[in-house]
Amino acid sequence: MNKPFVVVGGDAAGLSAASKARREDPEREVIVYERGEWISYAHCGMPYYIKGEVDSIGDLLSLSPEAVRERGIDLRRNHEVVSVDPDRQIVGVRGPDGESEQAYGDLLVATGARARTASIDGTERDGVFTLHHMSAAAAIRALLAPPGEADASAFDGSYVDVDVSEYLARTPPETVAIVGGGYVGIEMAEAFREWGLETHLYQRSSLPVPPFGEAVGDRVVEVLRDRGVHVHLETTVETLDGTDRVRRVETADGSLPVDLVLVGIGIRPNVEVLSGTGVELGTSGAVAIDKYGRTNLENVYAAGDCAEKEHVVTGDPEWVPLGLTANRAGRAIGQSVADDPEPVGKIAGTAVLKAFELECGRTGIVGEDRARAAGFDPVSETITAGSRSGYYPGNAETTVTLVGDRETGRLLGGTVTGEDRAAIRINQLATALENEMTVTGFERLDLAYAPPFSPVWDPTLVAAKVLGGQLESTGD
Amino acid sequence: MNKPFVVVGGDAAGLSAASKARREDPEREVIVYERGEWISYAHCGMPYYIKGEVDSIGDLLSLSPEAVRERGIDLRRNHEVVSVDPDRQIVGVRGPDGESEQAYGDLLVATGARARTASIDGTERDGVFTLHHMSAAAAIRALLAPPGEADASAFDGSYVDVDVSEYLARTPPETVAIVGGGYVGIEMAEAFREWGLETHLYQRSSLPVPPFGEAVGDRVVEVLRDRGVHVHLETTVETLDGTDRVRRVETADGSLPVDLVLVGIGIRPNVEVLSGTGVELGTSGAVAIDKYGRTNLENVYAAGDCAEKEHVVTGDPEWVPLGLTANRAGRAIGQSVADDPEPVGKIAGTAVLKAFELECGRTGIVGEDRARAAGFDPVSETITAGSRSGYYPGNAETTVTLVGDRETGRLLGGTVTGEDRAAIRINQLATALENEMTVTGFERLDLAYAPPFSPVWDPTLVAAKVLGGQLESTGD
Repeated sequence: MNKPFVVVGGDAAGLSAASKARREDPEREVIVYERGEWISYAHCGMPYYIKGEVDSIGDLLSLSPEAVRERGIDLRRNHEVVSVDPDRQIVGVRGPDGESEQAYGDLLVATGARARTASIDGTERDGVFTLHHMSAAAAIRALLAPPGEADASAFDGSYVDVDVSEYLARTPPETVAIVGGGYVGIEMAEAFREWGLETHLYQRSSLPVPPFGEAVGDRVVEVLRDRGVHVHLETTVETLDGTDRVRRVETADGSLPVDLVLVGIGIRPNVEVLSGTGVELGTSGAVAIDKYGRTNLENVYAAGDCAEKEHVVTGDPEWVPLGLTANRAGRAIGQSVADDPEPVGKIAGTAVLKAFELECGRTGIVGEDRARAAGFDPVSETITAGSRSGYYPGNAETTVTLVGDRETGRLLGGTVTGEDRAAIRINQLATALENEMTVTGFERLDLAYAPPFSPVWDPTLVAAKVLGGQLESTGD
Repeated sequence: MNKPFVVVGGDAAGLSAASKARREDPEREVIVYERGEWISYAHCGMPYYIKGEVDSIGDLLSLSPEAVRERGIDLRRNHEVVSVDPDRQIVGVRGPDGESEQAYGDLLVATGARARTASIDGTERDGVFTLHHMSAAAAIRALLAPPGEADASAFDGSYVDVDVSEYLARTPPETVAIVGGGYVGIEMAEAFREWGLETHLYQRSSLPVPPFGEAVGDRVVEVLRDRGVHVHLETTVETLDGTDRVRRVETADGSLPVDLVLVGIGIRPNVEVLSGTGVELGTSGAVAIDKYGRTNLENVYAAGDCAEKEHVVTGDPEWVPLGLTANRAGRAIGQSVADDPEPVGKIAGTAVLKAFELECGRTGIVGEDRARAAGFDPVSETITAGSRSGYYPGNAETTVTLVGDRETGRLLGGTVTGEDRAAIRINQLATALENEMTVTGFERLDLAYAPPFSPVWDPTLVAAKVLGGQLESTGD
């Protein structure tokens, strides 16, 4: 009989693996350790819960502990795996009743990532939040919603480990600062404006959402400002000042009085549980894996936000912590440990973002510098075209940037942004990248045309035509 | 000096070719013969003009005669090419001033297609329309719009060759019949209902839009009926009865009094100009071409709705008369005749359709019978999944059907239908078909996820997972 399949972390990757392993091999014991209370919750939904578009915090849960147990998984919440001994194939666990050891046949480390805050002084002050846990979402929503509109479900102690009623009793904030113009920052700007707050967004670099490149960044700034967000670019927040409670944001340029601060300056992988094991980490600091999700330690896998993955364009390992690829890797590993090896798949870094009414998508390599660093000789073009036939109501300007390689003609990546079905169009580019298509090959795709949905030439085809012409005229 | 590049037909394929040829070789004479008044108009926009969503009939023109001439193209409207002599490389032309001959160096036949009506008696009666010309669109809109809302631009004789004021003076219809449940029929049902007409749609087979398969057909019927359209399935219209004017639709089941009939039972390619030349036609009756759009006659090309094209999945020539592939083929031929050969590209049969609020897309081979006829061993699966995260407002049921080949695991085609960004998702499947992806390969794509746009697993990925499981369990 196989020793148990032990999973560290009860979120996307961990529970996908556990569920798949049980389905494939119903006889095998599967144990999932989760150090917190929460399992399987929708990180990406938190801004919309705070905004009030999602009614109840419970809606963000995709799987209840009961549902997990019904799958035959031995789920142990509030149990933290504190050490891994790869020689003895044993993990050390700290739970409510003390420390213990657990032997494993296969081990999956799916410990996720955590919010970075280290570069800023004063993040420990009351009123400063990161958005990496449900408790923060519950607290912020309680602060913002008028008493009559509070989410009663968040008072239930089983949901969050903060005293929500304490937040409800406070004076609602009037001015908020967001530190960081990444996904969380942009989405939270929309949520704060929904509640009518004076909202300041600080971004260290010259544009928000750098992975989306310049064309998207420009349009995001435009829409944020249109919607009344004060956008401070090239402005580094040094200190969150105050007493116990945060009162001021300090930058080199000056000081802003605030009632609440949201810090979203990125995340870092949780790899500490593997320290001392000799595990190999990648240059990103996340765990290095092979095509089946295996680390260099025997029978130890890693998946989700704590692991790297092979990039479809560069072929190199990269760290792109996102939801779909975490789920997929978990599922594949669950199948592999049942002796039916399944690759975890590659990443293209496909991501989509809503900034108020603006939809943004990106995939592959965006930006010529990035492409050069990966050894390509890049050419890029940005075009703006209609999302529908010009005469059809709702036609919206859609901006597409494509990056190609001069030497091979290969499509390396791109972005799409606009207000009408722009984000989902990134999928046709992501599919092309997976197949290593050339720009010219992409240009010949038979894509959809009908006046309500697309002009004769989809905006991505228009961009491919322009970039294709450019590659031809500059190539040899 | 090259003899002229002569183009027969001044619409999508013809004008794309003429424009590209002039750009590539500005010295060469390019002559376009168009037998009618109209050039470069948006067939696909006509239902939305009739519906009233597009204000003016002129909005449907993408290129004016003046703009064509500014490109250096010798455009001759009201000139019909009546014969081709491939040995002497000469075409016979009939124009307002009589018949003449024109020598060509290269010839493009882009004569399009025409509406089929032959199987029905009485289509010559007044009040019976097909929707293949702008004049019909102008007349129908004039009949439906209240006097104050008439499209004044349609009175201008340069736009349409019917007396629109004559239609305006008539009593507006109250009951209309649509014969045929294809694209035109479905779109016109929406237009007629917009004007409050009692609308009957007759379809000979058991479901509308057969190329979209059963799952889509079922949902289209549902939405048509929800919106008050009387859908008569498996009902063949035999006669359109009346005096000069149509008064009744006669079927085997009975008789319906009507004021107007729209016939949309398909189109057939216009190939008569090549009769007697020894040109090779395909099994569809459209002109057979090679990968550069060349017919078997020297220096004679064909493109657009009168020509076949290679299908990406079957590799066989097929006749799928649609807008994008006509434009692309024309453009490629315009480049090829300038001595820079460019393939016309393949077709995947990608098509999208709006049926009221329902969006439908199809690509590749849909339906197991069709797949078997093409030599595959098909398996298909239909799933329904959300278009967004379940907790996010606007999440809509999205139905995906995928067809795969048991022997090779290859993805052969599919459909997507739903109310939220469903149609445009067909592009990711079309891109996969062009690359001959397997179902399992598709399942591993890194597609977009964010709550407002897509659940973690895009509905097409959910379908691929289910079909992939099915292919595995039945394969060897």
